[in-house]
Amino acid sequence: MNTVAIFGVGLIGGSFALALREAGFSGRIIGVSSPETIRKALELGVIDEGMPAQEAAEAADLIYLAQPILRIVEMLPKLDPWVRPDALVTDAGSTKSTIVERAGAIVRCQFLGGHPMAGRERRGVEAAEAKLFQGRPYVLTPRSGAELESPQVREFIGWIEKIGAFTIILSPAEHDQIVAYTSHLPQLASTGLAALLEGRSAPKSGVFGPALVDSTRLALSSFDIWGDILATNREPIRSALKSYIAQLEEFSQVLDDRKIEEHFRRAAKFASELRERS
Amino acid sequence: MNTVAIFGVGLIGGSFALALREAGFSGRIIGVSSPETIRKALELGVIDEGMPAQEAAEAADLIYLAQPILRIVEMLPKLDPWVRPDALVTDAGSTKSTIVERAGAIVRCQFLGGHPMAGRERRGVEAAEAKLFQGRPYVLTPRSGAELESPQVREFIGWIEKIGAFTIILSPAEHDQIVAYTSHLPQLASTGLAALLEGRSAPKSGVFGPALVDSTRLALSSFDIWGDILATNREPIRSALKSYIAQLEEFSQVLDDRKIEEHFRRAAKFASELRERS
Repeated sequence: MNTVAIFGVGLIGGSFALALREAGFSGRIIGVSSPETIRKALELGVIDEGMPAQEAAEAADLIYLAQPILRIVEMLPKLDPWVRPDALVTDAGSTKSTIVERAGAIVRCQFLGGHPMAGRERRGVEAAEAKLFQGRPYVLTPRSGAELESPQVREFIGWIEKIGAFTIILSPAEHDQIVAYTSHLPQLASTGLAALLEGRSAPKSGVFGPALVDSTRLALSSFDIWGDILATNREPIRSALKSYIAQLEEFSQVLDDRKIEEHFRRAAKFASELRERS
Repeated sequence: MNTVAIFGVGLIGGSFALALREAGFSGRIIGVSSPETIRKALELGVIDEGMPAQEAAEAADLIYLAQPILRIVEMLPKLDPWVRPDALVTDAGSTKSTIVERAGAIVRCQFLGGHPMAGRERRGVEAAEAKLFQGRPYVLTPRSGAELESPQVREFIGWIEKIGAFTIILSPAEHDQIVAYTSHLPQLASTGLAALLEGRSAPKSGVFGPALVDSTRLALSSFDIWGDILATNREPIRSALKSYIAQLEEFSQVLDDRKIEEHFRRAAKFASELRERS
């Protein structure tokens, strides 16, 4: 792997570039982004040069798509005529079924879907950091196990490990069902709380504690990212929302009796174990 | 005000004692707690001496009840025969209707309900700090406006301001309805998410990001405190849960169309404004 093209040099794409470099990658890192982002990425030393998409795709051994999901979906069929046959195209999109299905359009080289489960509140290349992936899961979603055996993919997995992440192999559908619960539901729970309170005078009275501030932090997230996630993972999200609503309805019914204590105990156990694993 | 008796020298009671001292209170601070807590509170310089409840109540100008809610409810009728006629009894319980109603048993001196909206993740006198109330709301719940005009209450409000809090005057029912949305609902939203995920294998796969860790932080809260809150604010909490469930059901219906963007926008606006006020 001598030349990497990062499509979308934002938080994830920029951090992947910085992490590769810190892990000892000595080849060329090309950025494909808006002129403004390329200028900043060059200034910050995140990439070696900026190029138009076609030129970058023609040059690269690894094409790393770190754009918003629907931009990746648009880009995939365009890439096919440009790529080198021994290249690997991968992506960092937060949902996988739609992208992997659309990646069927890539026939001239190999494609492997991925999702680094890392993030920060700040966005953009200015927020990129080499350590972003350290200790974090990096999900890969091959369509078959054989996809993991090619030299390109083996080398890519080697770099994922060198940047400090650990790989988890799932099917695209399994991935999307899991993140509906562990990522998309927490987002909607926070957005739902904030949207509900926005319409009420109560919090405007100032009668709230630090818990409300914490609980509405995710609600600050940009719809630029979330619109694509929701649009490409509707049924798993609906199913997660349904289970969550059932849980809240049960709370409402058992507030009267000591059954609620058992829910609190289980919830505290889960929250505590999660912290040991993260 | 020369002698203050703190009943329940934990995070709130201990912090109130430290805050009074830092604000220039030069009188005596008595603690009423378990022998173990009194020993720690004396070691940490939080109180001047420990006493049994009756002796402390007989000596105090201000009786500050900072125990769990149902302990306050038990204590109130016992206090009446002990108190000095010019004393003020107040409390720091997180729900107010039940406590203020039960405080009808205090007839030999004045009672005023209160709720300092401050907290920390750590509990107990070891976590107490003089600055806990700085910049935080301190709700007072008189049964009538006249209750705020007595010399004892005026002096008490003076101390609340000196310790850096700002007072908000509400009826007990108004208070309980507001905190059902701004405090109790965020707690149940987090506990509900954690309880739901505890029963599922998904997060055990390690496929989660920092958002899930944040979203389940409140779920670590102890049921020792929350059991009493839920038991004494059932109807306002049921009503808040019902509104929240309706909001989540609407999300489920509009995932398909761009209406969800409007919810995200309103939620982000609320979350952003909340941060300006806190």
